[in-house]
Amino acid sequence: MIVPGFRFAATAASIKKPGVLDLALMVADTPAAAAGVFTRNRVKAAPVLITKDRLRKGLAQAILVNAGNANACNGPEGLATARETCRAAAKLLNIPERLVLPSSTGVIGAPLPGDRIIQGLPQLVAGLNPDGLGEVARAIMTTDTRPKASLVKGIIDGKEFTLAGIAKGSGMIHPDMATLLVFIFTDAAATPKVLKTLLRQALTKSFNRITVDGDTSTNDTILLLAGGRAGNAVINAAGASMSALSEALSRVMGDLARQVVADGEGARHVYRIMIEGAATPAEAKKAALTVALSPLVKTAMAGEDVNWGRIMAALGRAGARFDPERVEIAFGPHPVVQNGRGLGPVAEAAAQQVIKSASFTVTIRLNAGDFADYYDTCDLTEDYIRINASYRS
Amino acid sequence: MIVPGFRFAATAASIKKPGVLDLALMVADTPAAAAGVFTRNRVKAAPVLITKDRLRKGLAQAILVNAGNANACNGPEGLATARETCRAAAKLLNIPERLVLPSSTGVIGAPLPGDRIIQGLPQLVAGLNPDGLGEVARAIMTTDTRPKASLVKGIIDGKEFTLAGIAKGSGMIHPDMATLLVFIFTDAAATPKVLKTLLRQALTKSFNRITVDGDTSTNDTILLLAGGRAGNAVINAAGASMSALSEALSRVMGDLARQVVADGEGARHVYRIMIEGAATPAEAKKAALTVALSPLVKTAMAGEDVNWGRIMAALGRAGARFDPERVEIAFGPHPVVQNGRGLGPVAEAAAQQVIKSASFTVTIRLNAGDFADYYDTCDLTEDYIRINASYRS
Repeated sequence: MIVPGFRFAATAASIKKPGVLDLALMVADTPAAAAGVFTRNRVKAAPVLITKDRLRKGLAQAILVNAGNANACNGPEGLATARETCRAAAKLLNIPERLVLPSSTGVIGAPLPGDRIIQGLPQLVAGLNPDGLGEVARAIMTTDTRPKASLVKGIIDGKEFTLAGIAKGSGMIHPDMATLLVFIFTDAAATPKVLKTLLRQALTKSFNRITVDGDTSTNDTILLLAGGRAGNAVINAAGASMSALSEALSRVMGDLARQVVADGEGARHVYRIMIEGAATPAEAKKAALTVALSPLVKTAMAGEDVNWGRIMAALGRAGARFDPERVEIAFGPHPVVQNGRGLGPVAEAAAQQVIKSASFTVTIRLNAGDFADYYDTCDLTEDYIRINASYRS
Repeated sequence: MIVPGFRFAATAASIKKPGVLDLALMVADTPAAAAGVFTRNRVKAAPVLITKDRLRKGLAQAILVNAGNANACNGPEGLATARETCRAAAKLLNIPERLVLPSSTGVIGAPLPGDRIIQGLPQLVAGLNPDGLGEVARAIMTTDTRPKASLVKGIIDGKEFTLAGIAKGSGMIHPDMATLLVFIFTDAAATPKVLKTLLRQALTKSFNRITVDGDTSTNDTILLLAGGRAGNAVINAAGASMSALSEALSRVMGDLARQVVADGEGARHVYRIMIEGAATPAEAKKAALTVALSPLVKTAMAGEDVNWGRIMAALGRAGARFDPERVEIAFGPHPVVQNGRGLGPVAEAAAQQVIKSASFTVTIRLNAGDFADYYDTCDLTEDYIRINASYRS
């Protein structure tokens, strides 16, 4: 997984525990155009505050990230330690400190062991290599069970370009379950303003459809760096080039978001709750989110039970207007509810075959208007299911 | 557990499965003043629709309840079956059908087996006895692991009165987890209007502090019947008598609500999230609810881990205004956070002793205003905790 113009390295710095990858460095050969989106949580970690500030000019050359410690709620010392580690990295890389972006994930409220990070830097810098992104994906894991990475290639101005990203985070019951970190690199050339626009657009159909508006942990961060090595004319306005980059970004972010959902603790099924026929866009979103988050629906999916009654109950408290007697529900192509009532055992048997697949869509038509929206989520398995999934039988 | 003027009976009618109590009848010797509150879910079960309608005149004499089938999403047939069963009960009891209130809990969308209910009625009526309320509490259980009942006595007009209630429901992760049914009986005399007022008042500090505004399942129902056998002057306005009845009702409903929380699946700790110093009442409530519902906080409590960072993260996304650097957090009497920062291992060790108790309060001062509110909740244990509770260590 190579993005021309970028090098990567990871090491074990005893931040999680000894011998485990937990510190990583991502470096562009030259200053890159950069954009980011961040948590809307009122409590922001020190690295989030620093990175937001450093990105104001839209330039970055390195990202220094650790897992095992969030460096949040550590007051002025947290900011100072984050800056010190970036300063040390900048010195070794011989680049301005301001171009180094810090990022952290892990325990909140424990002092960041800056000394261990600084001690690990020489080895990191020496290990920088074009093929190191996969190792970085492993180093940033916390509750994740597997690393998440995605890469696409495309053409802009007749030049081939690459866009690759890694992510950490596992989406389980609720949007507050874990910090989300996403780092994306491309050798295409674009202005920081274009990058920011594309990032926000891609977000609405990727990570914002598995979490609530990025309003999650203290540390959530998505960064996009464009190095320009591909040789296209710098993208600075809408057009075919911007569309090509947009498509690549949307594909990588969509792929990473699905990987995050699929890594929910114990998840065996990934499904999309698609709402159609809502009275307003906001109601479509609320209805999709409420059904997607329902623990009762999640446990039914884990039990491969076509328990559409739980979907109706979740819909009914979602705050969307609809006539219960006009609701339709289908699993994949198989309808199980029409006019608000069940179609019976034969229909449910067909729907159950859909649930047995690893990935499927539940379509809910409210017949109250013209608006649609969706959320992707996963089932809720294990002991928790013992009581809820066996309840119907 | 006897409330003069009322009789109760339960039986096994093969609605859940053969041989298990699942049908119950609660009868007043004479028509009783009655009031109810119901789910705000847009999808309402047939018995909810019928009972709401029948309570308009504020009179009731019997409640016919089944577990194992919610009689929701069954269209006109659901309404017809509920009415038929009430009609059969009314005939056997020799009272007007309109005074019989139906109630159901269980699977949504399965036809209610009205014939089995009607077959069970003669045995129920024959078994009615003053001491049967405990058995009814068992008959209405679904995911509950134990029956829930509470009784208080008090004095009105120099006359002793009794107020007793039973409940079903288990509060786990989220307010949509299970149907809540509550049936309360008193021999005090009061007008239906007074009963309704008292019910709504008691709700705000009991069940509405473990769920969201009653906006939960398709079947949630709380009923209060006042028979008048105690012999007090009928309470029809504010005063000492109304206060005495109010206090009894608040105590019983508060007790039942705590029992519902404590029956969360696998719960080992019941705790109150108390927010103080919020800028508005709405923000106090939002902050308390967000922290109380946080799965990350719940798993930390299960692991007896003083992980105040997760509380800070939940606070930060609650939508309440505050300065993170002014937040204080205490477990019982022991502060662990001041000025938004941890007080260290000694403070956390003292707080951990608090978590080890079965029931405790976490007090969070936002120092942003004068308003306070709270929610009661329970921890999240078992396999789900394996990943999250061990994450910090």
